[in-house]
Amino acid sequence: MAPIKNGRHLFNEVPVGYPVPGKTTVYDESETIDLETVPLNGGILIKALSFSIDPYMRGKMRAPTKKSYSPPYAIGEPLNNHAVGVVLRSENPSFKAGDHVWAFLPFQEYVVQTNVAHVKLLENKENIPWSNYVGAAGMPGQTAYLGWKIFSKAKKGETVFVTTGAGPVGSIVAQLAKLGGLKVIASAGSDEKVEFMKKIGVDVAFNYKTTDTVKVLEEHGPIDIYWDNVGGATLEAALDAANPYARFIECGMISQYNQTSPYGVKNLMNIVGKRLSINGFIVSDHMTPENAKDFYDTIPAMIAKGELVFLEDKKYGLDKVGEAILDVQSGKNHGKSVIVVAEE
Amino acid sequence: MAPIKNGRHLFNEVPVGYPVPGKTTVYDESETIDLETVPLNGGILIKALSFSIDPYMRGKMRAPTKKSYSPPYAIGEPLNNHAVGVVLRSENPSFKAGDHVWAFLPFQEYVVQTNVAHVKLLENKENIPWSNYVGAAGMPGQTAYLGWKIFSKAKKGETVFVTTGAGPVGSIVAQLAKLGGLKVIASAGSDEKVEFMKKIGVDVAFNYKTTDTVKVLEEHGPIDIYWDNVGGATLEAALDAANPYARFIECGMISQYNQTSPYGVKNLMNIVGKRLSINGFIVSDHMTPENAKDFYDTIPAMIAKGELVFLEDKKYGLDKVGEAILDVQSGKNHGKSVIVVAEE
Repeated sequence: MAPIKNGRHLFNEVPVGYPVPGKTTVYDESETIDLETVPLNGGILIKALSFSIDPYMRGKMRAPTKKSYSPPYAIGEPLNNHAVGVVLRSENPSFKAGDHVWAFLPFQEYVVQTNVAHVKLLENKENIPWSNYVGAAGMPGQTAYLGWKIFSKAKKGETVFVTTGAGPVGSIVAQLAKLGGLKVIASAGSDEKVEFMKKIGVDVAFNYKTTDTVKVLEEHGPIDIYWDNVGGATLEAALDAANPYARFIECGMISQYNQTSPYGVKNLMNIVGKRLSINGFIVSDHMTPENAKDFYDTIPAMIAKGELVFLEDKKYGLDKVGEAILDVQSGKNHGKSVIVVAEE
Repeated sequence: MAPIKNGRHLFNEVPVGYPVPGKTTVYDESETIDLETVPLNGGILIKALSFSIDPYMRGKMRAPTKKSYSPPYAIGEPLNNHAVGVVLRSENPSFKAGDHVWAFLPFQEYVVQTNVAHVKLLENKENIPWSNYVGAAGMPGQTAYLGWKIFSKAKKGETVFVTTGAGPVGSIVAQLAKLGGLKVIASAGSDEKVEFMKKIGVDVAFNYKTTDTVKVLEEHGPIDIYWDNVGGATLEAALDAANPYARFIECGMISQYNQTSPYGVKNLMNIVGKRLSINGFIVSDHMTPENAKDFYDTIPAMIAKGELVFLEDKKYGLDKVGEAILDVQSGKNHGKSVIVVAEE
């Protein structure tokens, strides 16, 4: 078989403010691959099906001198993130052609993976769509499930405020909170998203662009738990609206990622006065074998039974990556952003 | 016996910015008391020996409409705080004349206490000075001891940054950290305080008014634990200097108490990226019988043996309260601020 094109999406330059499709990142077709003869060196050849586009990717678009919790993207190299793929060929006895896997992959159509330590076989007994495994049954779902389980200390009857409540993490958090018997206040950036939040059971759903967060929390708070995906002025509002001993789960601060001058939070004395506990977390720290088993035993089944409802915002083709990233950074996506490279 | 003067120090008006002695609070001699005939109604008559002057008192000098963790002072009424006193008369079988007690008392020379639920008998087997029981062996010492014990998760070889390192809380924290095998960086507001911090074993002692905190932490950090008594820009510097998984103990934010426009902290994204845990605490929440026993079994003995060194800044007479409060708010006190009303 002749070599075929192996489309890739590359990191091109460090953005200032919002990333610009075609400038910050570029689609590239210069590489080819011969699927039958490419050497595997004991590894596996994966065909990418779906890539996840996540808010945190903005933090990796930085100068390499700037330290952070995950390594920066390298200029001229493909972006990378969680993906679902199918094994085409294998020289590793743990995998066979036709197996589906969840892995952290470079943004390219085909990749040879020799280090398979973090390539996870997906059983998918529940027969949910493969794309779910980069969303509700993937890293965003793990973030919601384990963050809530480990840090919320939720008690029935308490009130939680969830930001990005229509998004892949926030919408799962909101539903887990409802299942736990909590009152859920949740915000999102469009009336369409507000409608979706109402549909999944959010008690007080509001559009933060047209409704004042401070007033909503004054009316419907105080809050016992704050799930933070946005930071900035919203975090400030949550600090003022917190009950004593409230728990703040710091999952992300997307309102700040594209700001050249970050927002200054002025009311941190609430932390002392209200004895708040605030925990930042990155889900990969908590993916122990026990937690991973718990997650995969629980969430795909809940999805299959319709107990967890969520949206996917699919774009087709690796050339759409730049656009998808910008949508996620600016809140234009409606549901979990997925790049579908191939259906099977 | 004829009635005698019962001097008091009253809250007079809500301050804007720093409290003004003689204006915010005033000394008053209009009351008298007959120590022999004043009715006890089943309670005890206490003669005050020493009152504690603490940073947090500023938060109680507020309009009553403003909620906070401790009730506001009432205009025209005496201030109140932790004190050591001696029982003059008793109608309660748990107390007898001559007993020494630790109690939350109004700022007056003599007081009849009918509710003795929170009056603690002091045994003082170690024979340390009574004034210590409002300092290292009182609330500030409890704050340092229990805050460190519960929230620091300190491990030998780690680095802690302690603010107000010459003060009644910070100096005890610094010494507990040294005893635990940590490297201690500590800040204070004068060269005299820096000398004292060096004397108690602080590894990197600096005057934050003449030395840049950011630079000190860049050179001697990163830090695993931050003991916050000051908030504002110092908290911001600590967030940047924190190691992943660092613990922030939020005990106070004195840099903010007298500001009409609080400082905006801009780098809270560190909480997520570094998976920080930040806990606000008020020591009274943690004074369970077990913790109280642990504290009184441990700290007075350490003081008596010279294992904990600290300074007391004594002022004599209830007329000096306003001045002492301002000194504490502006950092002019050198050691634990105590108002001595009587030696015995």
